[in-house]
Amino acid sequence: MTKKQLRVGLIGYGFMGRTHANAYTSVGHFFESGHAPELTAVCARDGARAKAFAEQWGIKSVETDWRKIVARDDIDLIDIASPNDTHEEIAIAAAQAGKMVVCEKPLGRNATESRAMVDAVEKAGVANMVWYNYRRVPAVTLAKQLIDEGRLGRIFHYRAKFLQDWTIAADLPQGGEGLWRLDKDVAGSGVTGDLLAHCIDTAMWLNGAIDSVSGMTETFIKERTHTIKGGMQKVTIDDACAFLARFANGSLATFEATRYARGHKALYTLEINGENASIFWDLHDLHRLEFFDHKDEGRTRGWRSVHVTDGDHPYMDHWWVPGLQIGYEHTFIHQVADFLKGLDEGKPAAPTFREALATDLVTDAVLKSAETGRWEKAT
Amino acid sequence: MTKKQLRVGLIGYGFMGRTHANAYTSVGHFFESGHAPELTAVCARDGARAKAFAEQWGIKSVETDWRKIVARDDIDLIDIASPNDTHEEIAIAAAQAGKMVVCEKPLGRNATESRAMVDAVEKAGVANMVWYNYRRVPAVTLAKQLIDEGRLGRIFHYRAKFLQDWTIAADLPQGGEGLWRLDKDVAGSGVTGDLLAHCIDTAMWLNGAIDSVSGMTETFIKERTHTIKGGMQKVTIDDACAFLARFANGSLATFEATRYARGHKALYTLEINGENASIFWDLHDLHRLEFFDHKDEGRTRGWRSVHVTDGDHPYMDHWWVPGLQIGYEHTFIHQVADFLKGLDEGKPAAPTFREALATDLVTDAVLKSAETGRWEKAT
Amino acid sequence: MTKKQLRVGLIGYGFMGRTHANAYTSVGHFFESGHAPELTAVCARDGARAKAFAEQWGIKSVETDWRKIVARDDIDLIDIASPNDTHEEIAIAAAQAGKMVVCEKPLGRNATESRAMVDAVEKAGVANMVWYNYRRVPAVTLAKQLIDEGRLGRIFHYRAKFLQDWTIAADLPQGGEGLWRLDKDVAGSGVTGDLLAHCIDTAMWLNGAIDSVSGMTETFIKERTHTIKGGMQKVTIDDACAFLARFANGSLATFEATRYARGHKALYTLEINGENASIFWDLHDLHRLEFFDHKDEGRTRGWRSVHVTDGDHPYMDHWWVPGLQIGYEHTFIHQVADFLKGLDEGKPAAPTFREALATDLVTDAVLKSAETGRWEKAT
Amino acid sequence: MTKKQLRVGLIGYGFMGRTHANAYTSVGHFFESGHAPELTAVCARDGARAKAFAEQWGIKSVETDWRKIVARDDIDLIDIASPNDTHEEIAIAAAQAGKMVVCEKPLGRNATESRAMVDAVEKAGVANMVWYNYRRVPAVTLAKQLIDEGRLGRIFHYRAKFLQDWTIAADLPQGGEGLWRLDKDVAGSGVTGDLLAHCIDTAMWLNGAIDSVSGMTETFIKERTHTIKGGMQKVTIDDACAFLARFANGSLATFEATRYARGHKALYTLEINGENASIFWDLHDLHRLEFFDHKDEGRTRGWRSVHVTDGDHPYMDHWWVPGLQIGYEHTFIHQVADFLKGLDEGKPAAPTFREALATDLVTDAVLKSAETGRWEKAT
Repeated sequence: MTKKQLRVGLIGYGFMGRTHANAYTSVGHFFESGHAPELTAVCARDGARAKAFAEQWGIKSVETDWRKIVARDDIDLIDIASPNDTHEEIAIAAAQAGKMVVCEKPLGRNATESRAMVDAVEKAGVANMVWYNYRRVPAVTLAKQLIDEGRLGRIFHYRAKFLQDWTIAADLPQGGEGLWRLDKDVAGSGVTGDLLAHCIDTAMWLNGAIDSVSGMTETFIKERTHTIKGGMQKVTIDDACAFLARFANGSLATFEATRYARGHKALYTLEINGENASIFWDLHDLHRLEFFDHKDEGRTRGWRSVHVTDGDHPYMDHWWVPGLQIGYEHTFIHQVADFLKGLDEGKPAAPTFREALATDLVTDAVLKSAETGRWEKAT
Repeated sequence: MTKKQLRVGLIGYGFMGRTHANAYTSVGHFFESGHAPELTAVCARDGARAKAFAEQWGIKSVETDWRKIVARDDIDLIDIASPNDTHEEIAIAAAQAGKMVVCEKPLGRNATESRAMVDAVEKAGVANMVWYNYRRVPAVTLAKQLIDEGRLGRIFHYRAKFLQDWTIAADLPQGGEGLWRLDKDVAGSGVTGDLLAHCIDTAMWLNGAIDSVSGMTETFIKERTHTIKGGMQKVTIDDACAFLARFANGSLATFEATRYARGHKALYTLEINGENASIFWDLHDLHRLEFFDHKDEGRTRGWRSVHVTDGDHPYMDHWWVPGLQIGYEHTFIHQVADFLKGLDEGKPAAPTFREALATDLVTDAVLKSAETGRWEKAT
Repeated sequence: MTKKQLRVGLIGYGFMGRTHANAYTSVGHFFESGHAPELTAVCARDGARAKAFAEQWGIKSVETDWRKIVARDDIDLIDIASPNDTHEEIAIAAAQAGKMVVCEKPLGRNATESRAMVDAVEKAGVANMVWYNYRRVPAVTLAKQLIDEGRLGRIFHYRAKFLQDWTIAADLPQGGEGLWRLDKDVAGSGVTGDLLAHCIDTAMWLNGAIDSVSGMTETFIKERTHTIKGGMQKVTIDDACAFLARFANGSLATFEATRYARGHKALYTLEINGENASIFWDLHDLHRLEFFDHKDEGRTRGWRSVHVTDGDHPYMDHWWVPGLQIGYEHTFIHQVADFLKGLDEGKPAAPTFREALATDLVTDAVLKSAETGRWEKAT
Repeated sequence: MTKKQLRVGLIGYGFMGRTHANAYTSVGHFFESGHAPELTAVCARDGARAKAFAEQWGIKSVETDWRKIVARDDIDLIDIASPNDTHEEIAIAAAQAGKMVVCEKPLGRNATESRAMVDAVEKAGVANMVWYNYRRVPAVTLAKQLIDEGRLGRIFHYRAKFLQDWTIAADLPQGGEGLWRLDKDVAGSGVTGDLLAHCIDTAMWLNGAIDSVSGMTETFIKERTHTIKGGMQKVTIDDACAFLARFANGSLATFEATRYARGHKALYTLEINGENASIFWDLHDLHRLEFFDHKDEGRTRGWRSVHVTDGDHPYMDHWWVPGLQIGYEHTFIHQVADFLKGLDEGKPAAPTFREALATDLVTDAVLKSAETGRWEKAT
């Protein structure tokens, strides 16, 4: 089969840059498509680092100015894996240049930025997608299937948490390389945009729109040294955030994220309780789905720990044999596979910029509620 | 050793009546005390049932009017295990008659009733206690020890849930025998007073006072047949309740209770995250405490699943040998053992009526916040 | 209902004496029967301790010579909870005196002793039972129900372990109070009779007769001080034992017990794999049964963690409400309840002495195989 | 850095061919080395399939006769991922041609074949390695570190199982593509060489040499249709095998493998109990190590569930961030990384052919013992 090349210009070489590079490199070994991605160029401000990254991943071209990569004729798709404060400008320029655009989450630093990005890609009519990768954990995709089939019945409850503990030390600085997530100017917000955005994206995918929220935030360590500005500076991000929510379908929800939950590294958990069945999943054992079906015979009814590694589980027929786990980076490979499939079929791959905007409307409402002390509309 | 008799008059023969009767009967087989409880009389409106209960538990005397049992000279302690709408009147009368009083939780249907009860027992100067039994799960008591020793350091987060699923069926009636918990007139509230009261009592015991709350409630099934009033009647209790809270010590909290969480029977869970360590416990495996200590060596650091059945664990030197579990009813035996020890030493056993009142102030604030849509003070 | 009294003479006041005393005392509070057990007398060589025990449990009469208790007219049932080397003599004398006899496990120190005991009770025609209490863990009884209903299909595998760690310390002495389990003269064997006997009894109850075995044993600490004989003495019991087995139904098995498995207190686990379904249970979470049913739909198939606390689970309708655990001692209460039911109905309660003899034939064969290095017949 | 190319000729395109191809392709993206592997050619009897495989993995050259690939000058390393009956002949030819040789496990169909292979590579002086990939699960490597540091003290027990259920259906045929594992002529043995070989390799790596064994085997389904020979044919492999063992260090062991354990897909578990600490691991949650340290304070002592995803865990500094899992195929990437590191440093990478031979001596002894009914020496 002759495949159509998809020439990718990757902007950013950090943690996300690596997951994306791996996805483009590996997808063809495990998934069929009429499109073959190729990492054509990588761009980053620090030329030496970008070059090292390029060597490691076999990328032939390096740029240090994103405008150049957007301008190049030999690039079909711009992949934005740089810090949040760069998303809007790059995405709009790329769309205007007629490139496909895929962007790390959250889309913008707030819904205003995100809306401008949506407008740009829709006006340009270019393929677009946001990297809410957790939708493509096979266990989470299986949850989606079960819900869509009506296996849960009327939904009463949704709850999600994303717990980390990496910023507890008071001597951890803010700002700069790898620490921009503690800097509100760059990140837009703290755990709300970084972690809750994931929880909200999955929640609305599984359970529909969120109607209204009541939130609280806290910054536990008030000042930290700033590696760029120098000296002790006020910490402006939210270290922790929790909120109550009401979904459009009448179900109640609790959400929480923090970087101060000692003992948890990346504990994203979600649970949904329906009239007939319930589902639980957590990222620390991402290959399992806990499923309770009230229709099972009473005496032997119990939470089933489904080892989501079988050939009839989502994506898993592309990997190894039953019982053998895949890991975190596979979610990015799956997302690229679905994007390529979308190109094959002329259909968008979810979530598009527009779909991702809905998440930013919720996070904005949560942050607003934390200030007003009242319930706020999330749509 | 000659022991002083403690003659108990038990009011109520339901689920709680049984747990209390078992506690009085068994405590002397496992715990030493200078006081020996004896079930002298049981009281219930339904004389035939009360008589059957008395036979089963070897109780010699039966009453059908609680005023009589309060008036008897051969009773030292009145134990109130009847529905919530009877607590206030009985407790006040018993205190006025100079009896010791122990009462099922919640103390009153609201803080106003509870305050009157506190005033009565304090004015009378009689021993008093509320049956918040979960403090005496050995794993929970161990958590208290660790926290009091400062093992957790500064506390950032507290979260608790109490999830059940027994009222999902729309054809479950309200009112009457065993179903009074669905009747607001009798119960005072739904899950807030029934389930969250437990969560709040433990939380404040472990983590100090709650300053303010923001809550939401929901009644999923709006009408149910009423076995006493007849016909379909509006359901007036809260089927589910969740709230955000701020503790006086600056930590953030989420609380939730429901009877609509398919797959969970009595899943009371609590977690507390401190600077140095974290603790997790759940009632479905009540004999385990999950403990994470950041001071452990990095490579082998992990959540420890402590099987709380060893001789150096709270209460466990009174039971079997390491590795062998005790169950739910033992929490009541422990509470009686502590009450007797308090009598031996002339000290109150916790929680007293006054301590339990603090929980009712929180539940009242939560219910108010659910109406106002704002944060409310909880003290 | 007028009940027939069952006057019990209990021999032994140790760990097992306490579990039995509690069972007789509590059974009537939770189970209906036409027979009412009463602890009439307790017997032990150490009169002061026996007296203290009697006071704690409300037993009016104390003996220091078991022959006296066997001879008394006011005793209906002799309960042997004394060390293994006393079982045979007492049981035979009791049977000859026309008493019912219940005996702690293992029945004798070896099958020869056990066979004499079987002969005695059968000749006398008295009710008899051996305290293999783990059959009455509700989760284990549920496993039996599922197997008897054919839910597993053809059985391929059985595996059981009983892991402890309480004798690892080299300075733990042997002999005397509480330490007779390390003395072969008293105990008959080490872990084989103490722990594997439990595993074998359950295994044959669930999966039928064991045909042949190949075993190995080890004594890790060769000498220990002896509290009775004085000085360092050779340790003659087996510290650890493992064996392979073939059941009569063609399934294969592995069994293992040790007191040198660091980290395990009383980890009795069993698993059975059938053509259609599998079951797993462990004593450290005795209220759960893990069940895998291949007939479940493929995508959502998984091990179900059944919280065996519901009203339709064996014995559980006698206890609390769904979700609330019972503990270890309840297995003895259940066994007394079934014994009383047997008396009501004129039927034996399992396991009888004869049924328990089968276990001793297996343990004898295992110990013999450990010496011969060959497979041995177990029947 | 200029890297030295390592030109690989891969023989076999099945399940193992894919894991190896992925390892060569990905290793350079995550691990530094002075050697850069390149998949130069793939060889398989079925030319069309080999070609499809080559296209998917970007391999430029295809062969259908392994002798040709061995003879080529542009190949440095022969990787044998074809069925067991081809290992010996190919390995010896490759060694004689002066190629490095890496071979899938088990090395030969029996120790006689393996010994010939050891002789060949040692005589030729070529680098060699066997793909016992489970040593490179980070959690297993961590176990090795802890044992080597003496954290466990004297070892008392080792137990391992490898449970699958994929051959329960009686209508599953034997022979041919993907089913050669049921054909003794091709595979050498059933679960003993396929699954127990893994368990034994890890066991001896962690706990030293196995001295003697007593085993049993069973073939549950006696006849199956044969896709190559045609018709119903006797099944000659072992469907299940269990054995007792004594290690040279005095510890006792149980091993078991089967393809008839309903509910288990690839449940490789291992546990090791030492005087001071114990370790448990299972392949179904391969990113966790359970660790019990008796030196922890008594009250909070418990099995620690170590989420082996932190930067100080073996291999994990090459992957993502703490809390994010890797999967099965990463074990092969790690093994290639270590092989390349060995080339950089001029040292062999474990296990070499000689080290892997020790496993075949054990499996041969187990199979012999299953026939003789006696203990057999395993060295």
